[in-house]
Amino acid sequence: MSPAAPVTLGRVSIRGHTHLAVLLDGSALPLSYMIPGIGDDMISLISNWEDLAPRIHTLAAEAKDPEPIRLSDLRRPIDRPGKILAIGLNYADHVAETGMPMPDRQLWFCKFPTAANDPYADVQIPRAGHQVDYEVELVAVIGKAGRHISPDEASQHVFGYCIGNDVSVRDWQLSSPQWVLGKSFDGHAPFGPFITLANPSLDPHDLTIRAWVNGQLRQHSNTRHLVFSLWEQIAHVSKAVTLEPGDLIFTGTPGGVGVALQPPTFLKAGDRVRCEIEGLGHIENAFQPEGSEHGS
Amino acid sequence: MSPAAPVTLGRVSIRGHTHLAVLLDGSALPLSYMIPGIGDDMISLISNWEDLAPRIHTLAAEAKDPEPIRLSDLRRPIDRPGKILAIGLNYADHVAETGMPMPDRQLWFCKFPTAANDPYADVQIPRAGHQVDYEVELVAVIGKAGRHISPDEASQHVFGYCIGNDVSVRDWQLSSPQWVLGKSFDGHAPFGPFITLANPSLDPHDLTIRAWVNGQLRQHSNTRHLVFSLWEQIAHVSKAVTLEPGDLIFTGTPGGVGVALQPPTFLKAGDRVRCEIEGLGHIENAFQPEGSEHGS
Repeated sequence: MSPAAPVTLGRVSIRGHTHLAVLLDGSALPLSYMIPGIGDDMISLISNWEDLAPRIHTLAAEAKDPEPIRLSDLRRPIDRPGKILAIGLNYADHVAETGMPMPDRQLWFCKFPTAANDPYADVQIPRAGHQVDYEVELVAVIGKAGRHISPDEASQHVFGYCIGNDVSVRDWQLSSPQWVLGKSFDGHAPFGPFITLANPSLDPHDLTIRAWVNGQLRQHSNTRHLVFSLWEQIAHVSKAVTLEPGDLIFTGTPGGVGVALQPPTFLKAGDRVRCEIEGLGHIENAFQPEGSEHGS
Repeated sequence: MSPAAPVTLGRVSIRGHTHLAVLLDGSALPLSYMIPGIGDDMISLISNWEDLAPRIHTLAAEAKDPEPIRLSDLRRPIDRPGKILAIGLNYADHVAETGMPMPDRQLWFCKFPTAANDPYADVQIPRAGHQVDYEVELVAVIGKAGRHISPDEASQHVFGYCIGNDVSVRDWQLSSPQWVLGKSFDGHAPFGPFITLANPSLDPHDLTIRAWVNGQLRQHSNTRHLVFSLWEQIAHVSKAVTLEPGDLIFTGTPGGVGVALQPPTFLKAGDRVRCEIEGLGHIENAFQPEGSEHGS
């Protein structure tokens, strides 16, 4: 008997309604069909995970009567994360390409929750900023709330993993000493395609991570090259801030972003960015002028 | 007949339950007593303001059977703001005392929603950071959602005003190029004591603003000295980000913060910081070591 596939949880649109679901290859098991009253809020599911886990694991293992879905039916796994934390300059090759010194201390910024976007939706090239860039990142989803979490305990606070594109408007980011606005344009945090639950065979520090623009490979690394590990990240942030269920941690991007190309090359209307991490699936977003973008 | 007093809305704890309420001098009119189903969520009230305003204005004018309350019964008017945006270096005297150049562009940072705290609660002096400082600020509460709001339209998007203390852990803030963690320790955004609804006799750019530490006046200015007006702030931020009901905008602090004193002087256990803005009431928080702080 082969080991069970890891459980993947997400949100999927079926006939105009969004459902929490276990996601299979090309199909979904909507949880509302089988767990009355579960609603469509992933943060609530994560908060009640201990109670729900046995039933959801059984559903995933039995996989009865799945609904066929398309990738474009997938919604971001968390509609409105409470916090989106992001670490900068966290792969050595990316630090080198920015020309900045290697940080001796973790460098944290954030994206506003209004930046959350779906894994296959269009992403806006805004009217007010022009240097739109991609950054593929491993994203950790917090499960159990905590403050002062030690590196040794940190993995117990992670519910699962997904892929994020830390879309960045470089002209805004670099014209202010503070990055938050340049990192927080509406819809500039697409993530998904679903949450792969943390499990013993998933080592977040040994995953191939890649991004393509219009089919051209631009970023290609492995999460083993993180400067500060996810466990160190959780420990550092939680010295200051309580991490809560559904909070997202963007763990940094490897080299190969557009602003570091010679010459710097930014995304233009119609460009498609695909972000992929080993074992976690992929997300793919077309970039379109603000006002003309469509949902997935 | 004298003009009606401005309407003030807040959240108040009465016999162990939190209620939305119209606040009077020393008493409150809990809305749930008179508007069945209104709940205790201020963001929902703001979102439904057009429908609710006539009834709430009538209740405030009649002011029947108010419940006596103490200041310590007041809770922050919004339990969990969706976004807390904050502008830095926005009073000339504060820019001068920091030794930084006058910004030619607005400098935005943010505080995480987990920093929200009550107007009379204790505030933590964290274990992990030691240089804890105060910053009194006028806080605008967004009413109507919007993006690309012009300065001329900006006032139409403001629901009301309150007072905030942008508590800052200077050793964290200044040891990273990004301020968000140093500005976002748990509970480091006390605000309130209630929302004074925007009204024609309240000019947000002509309000005396003051802060005291243990009765000693430390900050004393007027919001007319803002470098970038609130209307310019809303216009700039909304070029990038959709502002939503209940979002908070911390509009900057005047000179007199502890880090700029000679010698720099930080808050210690037992210190009390009182922040007051003309017409908006005051908030007052005692600072206590993390783990020993009490709610209001």
